[in-house]
Amino acid sequence: MNKIDIEVSEVGPRDGLQSISQIMPTEAKKLWIKALALAGIPEIEVGSFVPVRIFPQFADMMEVAQYARTIEGLKVAVLVPNLKGAENAIKADVHKLTIPMSVSETHSLRNVNRTHEQMLDEVKSIVNLIRQLPVDERPVIEGALSTAFGCTIEGSVPEDRVVELAEALMEAGCDEVGLSDTTGYANPVQVKRLIGKVWTAIGREHLTGIHLHNTRGQGLANVLAAVEVGLTTIDSSMGGIGGCPAAPGASGNIVTEDLVFLLEAMGLKTGIDFDKLMAARNVVATALPDVELYGFTPDAGLPLS
Amino acid sequence: MNKIDIEVSEVGPRDGLQSISQIMPTEAKKLWIKALALAGIPEIEVGSFVPVRIFPQFADMMEVAQYARTIEGLKVAVLVPNLKGAENAIKADVHKLTIPMSVSETHSLRNVNRTHEQMLDEVKSIVNLIRQLPVDERPVIEGALSTAFGCTIEGSVPEDRVVELAEALMEAGCDEVGLSDTTGYANPVQVKRLIGKVWTAIGREHLTGIHLHNTRGQGLANVLAAVEVGLTTIDSSMGGIGGCPAAPGASGNIVTEDLVFLLEAMGLKTGIDFDKLMAARNVVATALPDVELYGFTPDAGLPLS
Repeated sequence: MNKIDIEVSEVGPRDGLQSISQIMPTEAKKLWIKALALAGIPEIEVGSFVPVRIFPQFADMMEVAQYARTIEGLKVAVLVPNLKGAENAIKADVHKLTIPMSVSETHSLRNVNRTHEQMLDEVKSIVNLIRQLPVDERPVIEGALSTAFGCTIEGSVPEDRVVELAEALMEAGCDEVGLSDTTGYANPVQVKRLIGKVWTAIGREHLTGIHLHNTRGQGLANVLAAVEVGLTTIDSSMGGIGGCPAAPGASGNIVTEDLVFLLEAMGLKTGIDFDKLMAARNVVATALPDVELYGFTPDAGLPLS
Repeated sequence: MNKIDIEVSEVGPRDGLQSISQIMPTEAKKLWIKALALAGIPEIEVGSFVPVRIFPQFADMMEVAQYARTIEGLKVAVLVPNLKGAENAIKADVHKLTIPMSVSETHSLRNVNRTHEQMLDEVKSIVNLIRQLPVDERPVIEGALSTAFGCTIEGSVPEDRVVELAEALMEAGCDEVGLSDTTGYANPVQVKRLIGKVWTAIGREHLTGIHLHNTRGQGLANVLAAVEVGLTTIDSSMGGIGGCPAAPGASGNIVTEDLVFLLEAMGLKTGIDFDKLMAARNVVATALPDVELYGFTPDAGLPLS
């Protein structure tokens, strides 16, 4: 594989499918993941290991994750909110576990029914479980700080609290933390400032990625801010599907298609082929005919060179 | 008026209304312009002095411009493609004339039916006309370099050509030039680089504004780039209406509502009240029921503070 400058981490199969009422059939999920990988997407968050009674859309999680692991060169990530999820993730042999930790405790209670303390205990249990594996079989553990830029329930979130929780996640044994603008509150100045504060606290190598939403249309401006200061992994969702079911009014991931155009146009290599990305978009459009797909570049096409 | 950091120049009544098939009634135009001014928009491009047989939507241009001039504190701009338009603009006593000069000569021929040389001659005629006025009655003359970031007909546009034409416009007697991404081809790296090159050629004080489109969803990322290097005037269109009738496939100005949220969230003062801006949006929605209004912030609302 050629060197890439920015790693686009596709979260549509997780954040996207989590937020819509339609359930994508297992075969379509596999087709989609395969098409994304063929387009050159280096990492895909393929779903969540969560209780099926609450999230029936992830009932096929094990099959989907195990299928994704058969795709050569693809990094497979999953979201796990608890130890049970982590056990399944290990069984599926994924490369990365993302554990959500909401900076807003109200959001945390609503999202995973746990206080910060309870969530940190859960992280420690997961870390203990992972550490029982041989070193070369351990998945990467990311603590994902959701509502890091503000909460639709609590309002603004103190940046010092974000930093404290980033430190607490690292102390609990995470390999890295991520920042998530779950609610689409972030602005570019805040993005740069908060990344800087977290870097000072835990080191640049432990915060390399960001998860941004496009709720107020600011997604790509915030990406630019993140890339300008030096983050190298950007989450996005094909067609911008997704959001957060526990944050009222929050909707819309940034659109992978527009993100890839932005990065490549700036001369940042993503390793992604735009035409093949459109083929993956067609898989989604076919499998989810009632779901609105966002994005401007798919309609406008690439510029004439 | 309090000091503002960034001047939002609303182009909806010109670029927006130029590109849609519905004709906004004169009274609605006045209501809209008034509502925009009440919201704190400091400058409005209220229309184009163009031939009525081609652009019937601007048949009431004189009445609208003269009305706008009665609004205290509002800077009134108009687009004029030729000497005849400039004569009308002077009659309407506007503050600013914008003369379009397309960097792509093919686009220039299609847009105003003139070569670069013919267009520069037209600019000189307009300058001569303006210079006959007493100094304190002269409107500002801006040469607006359209297709400055690429053309949907010619493809990529040499940056040296942009610089040469910026110099030629200044030599022809313009007070300032503007850069327009007519086609939505721009990316943030290019925005910063091109602004730098033009500044080197003609001086920072003669390039202070930029006109960006959101054709590929990159509008606000490009705004961030422009603001970061120090531009202070950003064009935008309420509801993102507009585009360019002579650039096939080009559509969508950046959305004033999302732009204002971006700037204010970053701590840059615009002098604009968001709730009153929504009132102005309602005027457009009522007057143009069949036109799709874009923008994320109007749906999502402002963040909880």
